[in-house]
Amino acid sequence: MENRTEISSLGEFGLIEHLTRNFEIKNASTVVSVGDDAAVIDHFGKQTVITTDLLVEGIHFDLMYTPLKHLGYKTVVVNISDIYAMNAQPTQITISIAMSNRFSVESLDEFYEGIFAACEKYNVDLVGGDTSASQKGFVISCTAIGEVAPNKFVKRSTANEGDLICVSGDLGGAFLGLTLLEREKNIFLENPQVQPDLENEDYIVGKLLKPEARRDIIDFFETNGITPTAMMDVSDGISSEVLHLCKQSNLGCRIYEDKLPIADQTRQAAFKFGLDPTVCALNGGEDYELIFTIKQDDYEKIVLSEEISVIGYMAPMEGGTKFLSKGGNTFDITAQGWNAFK
Amino acid sequence: MENRTEISSLGEFGLIEHLTRNFEIKNASTVVSVGDDAAVIDHFGKQTVITTDLLVEGIHFDLMYTPLKHLGYKTVVVNISDIYAMNAQPTQITISIAMSNRFSVESLDEFYEGIFAACEKYNVDLVGGDTSASQKGFVISCTAIGEVAPNKFVKRSTANEGDLICVSGDLGGAFLGLTLLEREKNIFLENPQVQPDLENEDYIVGKLLKPEARRDIIDFFETNGITPTAMMDVSDGISSEVLHLCKQSNLGCRIYEDKLPIADQTRQAAFKFGLDPTVCALNGGEDYELIFTIKQDDYEKIVLSEEISVIGYMAPMEGGTKFLSKGGNTFDITAQGWNAFK
Repeated sequence: MENRTEISSLGEFGLIEHLTRNFEIKNASTVVSVGDDAAVIDHFGKQTVITTDLLVEGIHFDLMYTPLKHLGYKTVVVNISDIYAMNAQPTQITISIAMSNRFSVESLDEFYEGIFAACEKYNVDLVGGDTSASQKGFVISCTAIGEVAPNKFVKRSTANEGDLICVSGDLGGAFLGLTLLEREKNIFLENPQVQPDLENEDYIVGKLLKPEARRDIIDFFETNGITPTAMMDVSDGISSEVLHLCKQSNLGCRIYEDKLPIADQTRQAAFKFGLDPTVCALNGGEDYELIFTIKQDDYEKIVLSEEISVIGYMAPMEGGTKFLSKGGNTFDITAQGWNAFK
Repeated sequence: MENRTEISSLGEFGLIEHLTRNFEIKNASTVVSVGDDAAVIDHFGKQTVITTDLLVEGIHFDLMYTPLKHLGYKTVVVNISDIYAMNAQPTQITISIAMSNRFSVESLDEFYEGIFAACEKYNVDLVGGDTSASQKGFVISCTAIGEVAPNKFVKRSTANEGDLICVSGDLGGAFLGLTLLEREKNIFLENPQVQPDLENEDYIVGKLLKPEARRDIIDFFETNGITPTAMMDVSDGISSEVLHLCKQSNLGCRIYEDKLPIADQTRQAAFKFGLDPTVCALNGGEDYELIFTIKQDDYEKIVLSEEISVIGYMAPMEGGTKFLSKGGNTFDITAQGWNAFK
């Protein structure tokens, strides 16, 4: 970076004006935006959907291999993914950041470039936030706001026995991207002369650093008259998410190993690291795909999409939450998802 | 504290369940609360108001003299104060926290006791949030959601020439509470045998550690058919806030020293520390009072409230933003409010 402008030279209000200067409102629902005590939103008879996430440097991301622009983009995607997971459309976000003085105005500009790119792509308005100093590292808090036609939202707790369990896209890629980047980081720390070897790994690195939220799936539901019976997004790994759906719906499940969607690049990376692709798909986090259940009658509609895989079905609670391997064995599903406190 | 339960023993989902276990929904507008990807809110034709704030240990609060219960209470108050400042009523909040492992489950329970006490008092539902580890210290992000009848919100930019400038309550108390507690902290650090001397200082300490949001003023407006022409809350000090109102409304102002409401306890504390009470009232932050402008015709209605003081009026921009002292001198108002980046 050529120039370095200290944040303290702008002050809090100057910084907010600077960061939001080129941002244009895209949604009619945004009545008042940045610059007042609060934003005002009018969803015109629709219901309002709200979700919030905290991203902490050293816990959720490593700036050694995460470009700030990608981090900004991902911050928005991670949050609006939760809005889509309610079968709703995101409309606004707020972004609050706390950072130490090692960050310059130019580095925050990069972060906001990513924020704005995601807002542009997903048609979302940035309507507020807060900026502060931090004692250590970079802390990001994002709140996403969306809208849904009255009572058309989809919860986690409303799956029925016999419903098909589906996932969008493919699984395990982000985890293998993380594994790769952590390996390259350690090699670099041991020997800074070695250049990172990321050849042919665009797919898994992209899944980690620049995930997309599955707006296309929500649009597909709308176009094809499908209402999932339950839904959530895949942030901690599908074994963890399946257990949430089962617990909250008071049901068990059957998941089939041979139905798990795993991309070729993910599978090859797993083999390279001596990992089982199935374990990566089950327990790897941060894929930001959607997992949802549908009535069996909707199966004919679902197969129209190449982006949706049926991986199992909801079963009576008494039978437990079971995973059926290719070899014909049955295992209990256990959540080995990510825990920020361990 | 007698017991200490490690946060890691509960895990993220266990912690969220534990912290929100006794919380009951109070608002019909809360359709879906904690426990799903997002909360769902139905404001039934009203507009939705959103604001967010970040509170960082070591920057915004010092746990050496801030009880966690008070911190939880203040977190809610600081945010809903921004909702009232839009002439709206708060209905929901989300709370996200990041903390190092020096915090136990019991200490978080204390923090949430304060959150819940404020939610109870102001009739607000906790509908979501996020929990994470932090690298250092305690970081809190709160988003407050409120509702307002369509287009009845009050912005900062809509004051008119000749409007009266009013403030609620009294000013400078929180700043003197902070000055006192910082002094006692330094005495304690130098000599841990000395007990803090807080006698007769309840008022200023209370203004800092347990502020209240001015719901009563918004209710007074409603009851008496008053709509302020512009409004904001006083978080950085009124000299800073007055400049915001003037800049955003493209106007100047006149503020009179002898009209500034200052409590006796505040005045006495200022003298004790050798400070000018007027300077404390102008530049001290965190009072969480409301500053607003009204049409001159509404003066007769405003004088019904002992909690409202008229401190000046909006003037043409050309005349500048002026402060008239008791001695008859005129000064330019400059923002000396708090800057987190300095």
